[in-house]
Amino acid sequence: MPSLPPFGALSACAIGDFRTEAGAIIPEVTLAYRRWGEFRRTSHGRTNVVLVEHALTGDSDARSWWAGLIGPGKAIDTDRYCVICANVLGGCQGSTGPGSPHPDDGQAWGSRFPAISIRDQVAAEKQLLDQLGITWVRAVAGGSMGGARALEWTALFPDVVGAAAIFAVSARASAWQIGIQYAQISAIENDPHWAGGDYYATGAAPLNGLATARRIAHLTYRGELEIDERFGTSALPGENPRGPFRDPAHRFAVQSYLDYQAKKLTERFDAGTYVVLTEALNRHDIGRGRGGLNKALSSIDVPVLIAGVDTDILYPYHQQEHLSRNLGNLLGMAKIVSPVGHDAFLTETRQLDRILRGFFAQIDPHYTAASPRIEYFI
Amino acid sequence: MPSLPPFGALSACAIGDFRTEAGAIIPEVTLAYRRWGEFRRTSHGRTNVVLVEHALTGDSDARSWWAGLIGPGKAIDTDRYCVICANVLGGCQGSTGPGSPHPDDGQAWGSRFPAISIRDQVAAEKQLLDQLGITWVRAVAGGSMGGARALEWTALFPDVVGAAAIFAVSARASAWQIGIQYAQISAIENDPHWAGGDYYATGAAPLNGLATARRIAHLTYRGELEIDERFGTSALPGENPRGPFRDPAHRFAVQSYLDYQAKKLTERFDAGTYVVLTEALNRHDIGRGRGGLNKALSSIDVPVLIAGVDTDILYPYHQQEHLSRNLGNLLGMAKIVSPVGHDAFLTETRQLDRILRGFFAQIDPHYTAASPRIEYFI
Repeated sequence: MPSLPPFGALSACAIGDFRTEAGAIIPEVTLAYRRWGEFRRTSHGRTNVVLVEHALTGDSDARSWWAGLIGPGKAIDTDRYCVICANVLGGCQGSTGPGSPHPDDGQAWGSRFPAISIRDQVAAEKQLLDQLGITWVRAVAGGSMGGARALEWTALFPDVVGAAAIFAVSARASAWQIGIQYAQISAIENDPHWAGGDYYATGAAPLNGLATARRIAHLTYRGELEIDERFGTSALPGENPRGPFRDPAHRFAVQSYLDYQAKKLTERFDAGTYVVLTEALNRHDIGRGRGGLNKALSSIDVPVLIAGVDTDILYPYHQQEHLSRNLGNLLGMAKIVSPVGHDAFLTETRQLDRILRGFFAQIDPHYTAASPRIEYFI
Repeated sequence: MPSLPPFGALSACAIGDFRTEAGAIIPEVTLAYRRWGEFRRTSHGRTNVVLVEHALTGDSDARSWWAGLIGPGKAIDTDRYCVICANVLGGCQGSTGPGSPHPDDGQAWGSRFPAISIRDQVAAEKQLLDQLGITWVRAVAGGSMGGARALEWTALFPDVVGAAAIFAVSARASAWQIGIQYAQISAIENDPHWAGGDYYATGAAPLNGLATARRIAHLTYRGELEIDERFGTSALPGENPRGPFRDPAHRFAVQSYLDYQAKKLTERFDAGTYVVLTEALNRHDIGRGRGGLNKALSSIDVPVLIAGVDTDILYPYHQQEHLSRNLGNLLGMAKIVSPVGHDAFLTETRQLDRILRGFFAQIDPHYTAASPRIEYFI
């Protein structure tokens, strides 16, 4: 039996040296992770583990960002399953990333940290499971960058993954995504405090650049109509953004909202990790080295559920339709109908609950869904 | 008869002092403009002038950016009409803007240049027409920021404008637009060479910030599928964007494309003007001070044609539908069907040609369209 930390506690696991897909070596890698629910091994090395994959700025605390979906009696039922969620390789919430001390000199990795791919993130998680002695998982689930990892799990380690539930992602980065993500990286690199990525010992950090990146990103995470319904052209109370001169103290409500989102991120997230993980999203391509996109997808025989959001700007719904048309073993395709846009994979709990209950009912004959009703909107 | 410059020649006209909507004074304003086609005055002060309005980074050289649409025998027929196009107030192509010398000290206006609105831009153009002795124009036409000006013309000066053809714009800035435009302004202001807007005498300019702004903007100007069809995840020939380390010399094709677009803009456009005009777009609101959006639109009795692009990310088609539902005197509504996105109002010449010919055939009984066929896609 693996030695797992108490429910919800952050634990660090040394997974050894890591070699990236492109050939760089990261020695002595740590991945931070959490678990909820008792671990059970069934026959033939099967387990009750559900691996949950976080998005770009998420972390291992899956019960916070999928609060309505993970827990006793919830869709991802911790009375039944052992949920494990690891902070991604390159992250800044306990896993080895550009802000971590380099084993050679104890200084931050900074610009020495290699570029990584979604596949690298998954391969590192596989090393974590190996360390924990977990040779098979019931399911892997995630959205956005977490969905990209879940998808790569099914291609890289089909014998390790029982099934996958994949939300709001694509088979590969689109050129538009690469472009908008590149613009975000540029905003960070243009910040004088970036210092070529080696700002960790300078006493400053590229917070303005990270804030600009977040403002851009946030507008791709939310629905255009939702943002407009909430803020329109309203001014912040007591401020006049239509005065005779431009004045940062006088803002439209949406500016203040974006400033708030940006500030929240700069207070909790590292700019170096943001660049490393955004770059990994740019490299996302399920077809690379596998004969192309559709050949790669059709050869995946792990059962996969695909879900998308009708108003998603960043990963438009046609990308999930493309996945569903080409995956080798499609369990089903669900549309999340929401004004929220991409972030609906985090916020539309009721629809996510139904989709995930339907997913587990299909892959686990002993799953007793509290709500047996399954609605797929194709 | 007004004294007008030779066809296509850039001419500067002193329009006097200008007071902005918000109460700032800009003394001794110049607007640069061009004209094509003989000026004719008909009875009752009517003229054959067609006023063409350029977009954010456009200028008075309308025959370059609407090359297929303006000229002898073309939709905006310079054998019949006198086309006038002015560089906008705040611009950097001959009109008074933040890079122009301040009359007090000859130094660039910089941060002293006030914030302006779309209405200010139109009011300044009205002063130009007054200077030229033109009291009425047959039509005003433009797209994007030019469409916003054309729309404001119909609300501010209904007795001066015979009709308007308005492309790819909205009744007001949406919160999403304000947000994405604010992110662009932030990118410029975060550039250390911005110097609070007073960089003109420093020997440096916030080119990196302007480049980042343009990368963001360009992705809102083009269709997501078009960008992906052109570039996908291709690398630039001879470069490997999937190497072991991030390296700006190894790029995806779309990065190189955005870099090229950014560089082109930084070579021809002033960052201060970019901020001033982007701020004007943020202030665009046809309903302000007029009892709200729909009341303002319904009270406009100038005949207006509205056209939008089905794949427009920046000004989604539902915004043109909103205009068409609420305008007081709608000539018609046309959909430009194109993968190109917002920029289709510049690039889809064949569709624009038909739309504009249909427009002139409706408003001008003597207009002889080479192609009498009018197709409206409602």
